[in-house]
Amino acid sequence: MSVGTPKFPIMHPVGGVLLGTHCAQIKQSTRDDLLVIAMDSGSTCSAVFTQNLFCAAPVVLAKKNLSEDPRWLVINSGNANAGTGAKGYQDAQSVCLALSQMLGGRAGQVLPFSTGVIGELLPVEKITEALPGAVNSLVEENWAKAAEAIMTTDTFPKGVSKVVEIAGDKITVTGISKGAGMIQPNMATMLSFVATDAKIENELLQQCLQQAVEQSFNRITVDGDTSTNDACVLMASGYSAVPGLLAGSEPYQQFCEVINEVFRELAEAIVRDGEGATKLISIVVSQAINDQEAVQVGKTIAHSPLVKTAFFASDPNWGRILAAVGRAGIENLEVDKVSIFLGDVCIVSSGAKDSQYTEAAGQKVMAAEEITITVCLGRGDAAQTIKTCDLSYDYVRINAEYRT
Amino acid sequence: MSVGTPKFPIMHPVGGVLLGTHCAQIKQSTRDDLLVIAMDSGSTCSAVFTQNLFCAAPVVLAKKNLSEDPRWLVINSGNANAGTGAKGYQDAQSVCLALSQMLGGRAGQVLPFSTGVIGELLPVEKITEALPGAVNSLVEENWAKAAEAIMTTDTFPKGVSKVVEIAGDKITVTGISKGAGMIQPNMATMLSFVATDAKIENELLQQCLQQAVEQSFNRITVDGDTSTNDACVLMASGYSAVPGLLAGSEPYQQFCEVINEVFRELAEAIVRDGEGATKLISIVVSQAINDQEAVQVGKTIAHSPLVKTAFFASDPNWGRILAAVGRAGIENLEVDKVSIFLGDVCIVSSGAKDSQYTEAAGQKVMAAEEITITVCLGRGDAAQTIKTCDLSYDYVRINAEYRT
Repeated sequence: MSVGTPKFPIMHPVGGVLLGTHCAQIKQSTRDDLLVIAMDSGSTCSAVFTQNLFCAAPVVLAKKNLSEDPRWLVINSGNANAGTGAKGYQDAQSVCLALSQMLGGRAGQVLPFSTGVIGELLPVEKITEALPGAVNSLVEENWAKAAEAIMTTDTFPKGVSKVVEIAGDKITVTGISKGAGMIQPNMATMLSFVATDAKIENELLQQCLQQAVEQSFNRITVDGDTSTNDACVLMASGYSAVPGLLAGSEPYQQFCEVINEVFRELAEAIVRDGEGATKLISIVVSQAINDQEAVQVGKTIAHSPLVKTAFFASDPNWGRILAAVGRAGIENLEVDKVSIFLGDVCIVSSGAKDSQYTEAAGQKVMAAEEITITVCLGRGDAAQTIKTCDLSYDYVRINAEYRT
Repeated sequence: MSVGTPKFPIMHPVGGVLLGTHCAQIKQSTRDDLLVIAMDSGSTCSAVFTQNLFCAAPVVLAKKNLSEDPRWLVINSGNANAGTGAKGYQDAQSVCLALSQMLGGRAGQVLPFSTGVIGELLPVEKITEALPGAVNSLVEENWAKAAEAIMTTDTFPKGVSKVVEIAGDKITVTGISKGAGMIQPNMATMLSFVATDAKIENELLQQCLQQAVEQSFNRITVDGDTSTNDACVLMASGYSAVPGLLAGSEPYQQFCEVINEVFRELAEAIVRDGEGATKLISIVVSQAINDQEAVQVGKTIAHSPLVKTAFFASDPNWGRILAAVGRAGIENLEVDKVSIFLGDVCIVSSGAKDSQYTEAAGQKVMAAEEITITVCLGRGDAAQTIKTCDLSYDYVRINAEYRT
């Protein structure tokens, strides 16, 4: 189940970035669950990782290896290698070593990523046995297979690809993401890998990544749970004819814009595929004093199980939204300045039910699959949008049955 | 559905405190939904209220009237009179005025309370028409009927009653509570009314109430949503032969102990009746630097939909507990000092799966209806317990269908 049935787009290959997949039979035996990404030498690479203190072994190792001129990424689904202690770290190292030996590099040049069930040891042998299959299939055209290989409870593969003209030449940005549950990314999504052929220094690439993540993956939530394995990587091969991007330049601004678009679309795809989701809900919080406050109110609404179940029922139970705003921890909020809209329909004005509001008008908005709530706080000019989904029977089913 | 089938206890009447109920047909027509409580003159009365900024009209008025020598409480279920603006406030005043005229007092001596659906105007006429019926039935023995009259989605009435000997004489403490959803009380539960015949000054009674609430209603959560209508009242009629209680005295300490017991039991009853609950989960967080930190970790676990659905499935998916601890926002937590127990079974030691842990041992603990999780942070000596319930299909059903 998902909100809408997103068509997987045409994925433009990124020169210098190769992808290969194979089935390692980690959890399911029927589909590829192992992905190798190879960047040509001279590529730059930036990444952000989960802020969960119990970050998984591969996250710890990938963070460390990020400064060692990374050339390869190895990603498995089906097992998160989290909560696995020292043994888990060794296992991640073993996988990196095996891949680097196969490709003639140092183990430190491999960034490992894992996603799946927490607390089980990584089946290292299955993975190393499947590595040659993935390496032998490395081609630039493999993005669609890659998007499928990293899925766990996802119901559809997630990809975005854009080609833009910057400074008279073309730059390609192509990326994939996965995620459906344990989603309140904090620095990154579950997993997302985006590549471009732009020429851009590591430091500037990292800056670009961070501002993109801040307005995309850090603005979505399915269930308020931040994963132990979140990671997001942005690679740049430098194959494009566009000259090297410089901080503060017009081409860099244009580059950031397309990166931001790609990231926002990848992030929204995760919410659309939120476990059990039947509705995509955009919560716009405006007239806030600052962004932080707008995000705080938006996430309080987005995390409320009462709001989420009302959306599942297509019930315009706006009192629950009002109650969430009231408990969001905003100091000195003047409730009689607050107004709330469901789509275009004003439901709350001056802190109470709007005199023109009718249940029929509210129900009409709620019947749609994609709904926007706008909360005006009446305090300032800042605005932020949080995207989330509803809470359905299927969310409970999926998460109650996850390990069976 | 509830965890266990709690038997409603024998409720000892409290001298000087009378209760009367009647059916005002506010939402349902088959049961009493209006409650009047009358305290004899000379009683003291303390109260705490929701910290939700959108607090309901009756909460605003009750807060104001608390300092006006309150003598009567009027409580309705079926309508929260929240999100109703200026009209809602007038409506609450009208009900107070009608009751005070009937009983020969000032309107300011009435504390109003409402619980039920948010955002609909209070049916004042229905209530004032039913008031004589409630007033005419005022007797000290009506606690059981009172507990039923304040129910909304509750599946059983909640009451606790104790008689203790203090300073050679008897003191009675009898109280009721309601609540099943929108439960993360912050200062108070949905609604709770407790009376005693102790003699105790207002200021000391308020102190006693606050410390009791802090360790009872402020330590439970069903869904993390703080209601607009939470309120908790502790009344003292002074009918007991025990001399007036003085701050710092041994009798006052003993009194606080019995009050705390009553409050903890009333709070636990709310969690047992959590919407859709099939499990009662006690989360003990120990070895914390301070209480605040222990509560923060406990509530992060208690609010995780992934943890709650795993409990519903009786699945010892301890990785979700670990992930919740890791995202609880505790600075400088050393994850390798963390251990976690499911009942008596150690599942995590030194931050990773315990080497002795077996899935069978975890499943045995999870099969029970009442489960204790213990998280040892390895940082200090503070410990706190948070009580919550699981997240089931029925939670979604109840809250999706609430207004239909």
